Amino acid sequence: MDYSQWYNDLVLKGGLADYSAVRGCMVIKPYGFALWENMQSALDKMFKDTGHVNAYFPLFIPKSFLSKEAAHVEGFAKECAVVTHYRLKNDPNGGGVVVDPDAKLEEELIVRPTSETIIWNTYKDWIQSYRDLPILVNQWANVVRWEMRTRLFLRTAEFLWQEGHTAHATKEEAVAEAEKMLDVYATFAEEFMALPVIKGIKSANERFAGAEETYCIEALMQDGKALQAGTSHFLGQNFAKAFDVKFLSKENQLEYVWATSWGVSTRLIGALVMAHSDDDGLVLPPKIAPLQVVIVPIFKGAEQKAVVDEKVKHIIEDLKNIGVRVKYDDSDNARPGWKFAEYEMKGVPVRLAIGARDIENNVIEVARRDTKEKKSMNMDGIAQYVDGLLLDIQNNLFTKAKEYRDGHITNADSWEEFETLLDTKAGFIAAHWDGTSETEEAIKEKTKATIRCIPLGNKQEEGKCILTGKPSVQRVLFARAY
Amino acid sequence: MDYSQWYNDLVLKGGLADYSAVRGCMVIKPYGFALWENMQSALDKMFKDTGHVNAYFPLFIPKSFLSKEAAHVEGFAKECAVVTHYRLKNDPNGGGVVVDPDAKLEEELIVRPTSETIIWNTYKDWIQSYRDLPILVNQWANVVRWEMRTRLFLRTAEFLWQEGHTAHATKEEAVAEAEKMLDVYATFAEEFMALPVIKGIKSANERFAGAEETYCIEALMQDGKALQAGTSHFLGQNFAKAFDVKFLSKENQLEYVWATSWGVSTRLIGALVMAHSDDDGLVLPPKIAPLQVVIVPIFKGAEQKAVVDEKVKHIIEDLKNIGVRVKYDDSDNARPGWKFAEYEMKGVPVRLAIGARDIENNVIEVARRDTKEKKSMNMDGIAQYVDGLLLDIQNNLFTKAKEYRDGHITNADSWEEFETLLDTKAGFIAAHWDGTSETEEAIKEKTKATIRCIPLGNKQEEGKCILTGKPSVQRVLFARAY
Repeated sequence: MDYSQWYNDLVLKGGLADYSAVRGCMVIKPYGFALWENMQSALDKMFKDTGHVNAYFPLFIPKSFLSKEAAHVEGFAKECAVVTHYRLKNDPNGGGVVVDPDAKLEEELIVRPTSETIIWNTYKDWIQSYRDLPILVNQWANVVRWEMRTRLFLRTAEFLWQEGHTAHATKEEAVAEAEKMLDVYATFAEEFMALPVIKGIKSANERFAGAEETYCIEALMQDGKALQAGTSHFLGQNFAKAFDVKFLSKENQLEYVWATSWGVSTRLIGALVMAHSDDDGLVLPPKIAPLQVVIVPIFKGAEQKAVVDEKVKHIIEDLKNIGVRVKYDDSDNARPGWKFAEYEMKGVPVRLAIGARDIENNVIEVARRDTKEKKSMNMDGIAQYVDGLLLDIQNNLFTKAKEYRDGHITNADSWEEFETLLDTKAGFIAAHWDGTSETEEAIKEKTKATIRCIPLGNKQEEGKCILTGKPSVQRVLFARAY
Repeated sequence: MDYSQWYNDLVLKGGLADYSAVRGCMVIKPYGFALWENMQSALDKMFKDTGHVNAYFPLFIPKSFLSKEAAHVEGFAKECAVVTHYRLKNDPNGGGVVVDPDAKLEEELIVRPTSETIIWNTYKDWIQSYRDLPILVNQWANVVRWEMRTRLFLRTAEFLWQEGHTAHATKEEAVAEAEKMLDVYATFAEEFMALPVIKGIKSANERFAGAEETYCIEALMQDGKALQAGTSHFLGQNFAKAFDVKFLSKENQLEYVWATSWGVSTRLIGALVMAHSDDDGLVLPPKIAPLQVVIVPIFKGAEQKAVVDEKVKHIIEDLKNIGVRVKYDDSDNARPGWKFAEYEMKGVPVRLAIGARDIENNVIEVARRDTKEKKSMNMDGIAQYVDGLLLDIQNNLFTKAKEYRDGHITNADSWEEFETLLDTKAGFIAAHWDGTSETEEAIKEKTKATIRCIPLGNKQEEGKCILTGKPSVQRVLFARAY
């Protein structure tokens, strides 16, 4: 099986997204967007419960802003969309519509690849005293990074995300905020997406451009490759210094403000697809599935259908009353078998099928998407049963993914072992590393594996770097990654 | 009073928005964004209740797409942000970061001013048969129109909006959809924003670029100027023809698809400010106010505060239980009088003030923002009282705005009367018009007044055009407008 082809097929056939006419940009289809809305709404609530508020900053960033933080511009200048003109006109030579050369901007605008610069330029006006701190702001937005090789959801030129940008009076508070939001992301990934993650910090090589420390959650896909599912950055005073944002402290001292930023994106949908799906299609966790239950009627003729309709009406009512997202597909343009396959492809967690004979016997067929198990159940109390089943499926998906992940964290104690593991078993490889960027770079060049993270609370143990043999104090997690 | 200055001050001091470093773009501050979120959530529910789903289409539109519909490109080409390059690089002459001339796009991309073209190019792939119709899709997005003169919320280069784009098998269905969404907008404006609106159709001059018919809702601001609060367009088969979108009908005929599009934007926040606010600040309708109730404690010393805190805790609990958005402002950095003024500026509908003596007497001071009325109320059942009061305020705001609006629709039967009314009373002027674009254009040039709409179900009566004296069959509504 070509894993990459399998993934693309699922995204397209599952109705999540489409390619668009614009290079590297995708269309998020209604079913995919409903999934994103459910993820958004759960995350947004978690952000608000931790004291954050939403705001909105401009799409455009003046070119000069990007340059103010040296590492930041280095990280983003090579892949950005640049607006240079603000008007089209009719080609005087009859060639249709052309850019009007007279409408050239004095300073080019960059379509935001991330918003630290425009936001810290704004915070300068919002912050005077310690009383103005902390600022705990989040933004839901589209961003553009001109990636050369794109993949639906995983790496697109435009993507949707949220970016939190907070400002604090002390270093300790900012570090605590970055860690708190990492916890929020981990909780969201595990509880809503059924996606087990490892919390850790990035090596200097993999750090966000402009951060002093990048925290991350790392997940494992079913092909043994890792995927960074979210990052939270402690930015130190880098952006405060770049944009001259100072505050008067309680002790009446002018000090630079401390910062964090943190984000997750529509990339998570790619992670979701790769973590749970199978050859029959998507497998979606009930908590965020756009549709949790589909009911398919089986009947011959209008009379039988009327009987089924009547019965289903009550089941739907009961399910909706307990908050289950349910659809009755009684459309007449496909046979039941075709519908079964269609909803399996779309990953709907539970399918109910009901026919005239079932009604006589007061039973209903319940099929769960994750295990493909089918059961004939008594119709009485079916809504309660389904409600419990949805929870069961949610837990099962997490357990299954966690077992796979835990079974794919392997120690490597020599270079040979490391290379063999990468090519045979894959997954996370826990190996000693001498702590230098040069060694990490060399390992990446030889194997395409990178340090995914140094897990939080990592066990300290003496060892020798698998590549250089130099002393090391801990194992770090390597993997090939998306 | 300089109305325009008054408006800007309110937006800034009320904490709704800020100017940004990017020409014509604004920062929507947390308080303003919370207002937008409440509006979004009410509208989104109404869209879903009428069968629509959300999706997301690319930010960028290939230049050639804009040109495919002649009227459309004419309407938007002159005010658009054009992306021409996809990379920056270090200036070899040491001048910082510059646009990399080697990274020029083959075809320029336009930052979407509206999405008909990119969406209809996508619908081409989604629609084959009548079974694929209707498509009822909405998108929440940012758009950019390079306006030369901008105003916070009312006219900004970038703004947030929703744009519905639907596809239908018949003309009748498309027209019915456009009218249905106009009704949704009118209901939203009146019930949530307390903003009375007139439903009508635009004259050809004011029609959306590419539409066959533009429906609109028009509101009146307190300075007597009109504001277009939402539009819904019947697009005919224009975009289907431009992008060659055909479907196989039930009768097995290949036919062009019929279209609508409809949108409202953050401009509505500007309308809200201008419709209800007064010299003390914003006045927000309870249904969408980020904060509905603020409680301010009045106390001397920690002991009194503890008593007040305890009492307030229960009131807050009661208010939250019935779904009221409430804040207890016990911050120690401002005196009660200062807080009163602050929340009046922010337009919080109800303010409760409570001190130690009030508790002895089992009373609480209730102040409503709309009428500035203050009352001492019995503490028992205060939550229920406040709940009713919020509804009362909502209704009062609508009634007041409607009385003003109704009192500012005036007939003019001669050119002199028309000009005098415009300069003295303003508001909507109902006058006969000969139905030609030339006359409308001439009136606009002379007076800056435009035809806001021809009301739906307009009374037909014979008369003479106020400018040309030519025969007319109905009065239309003129006004100077935002």
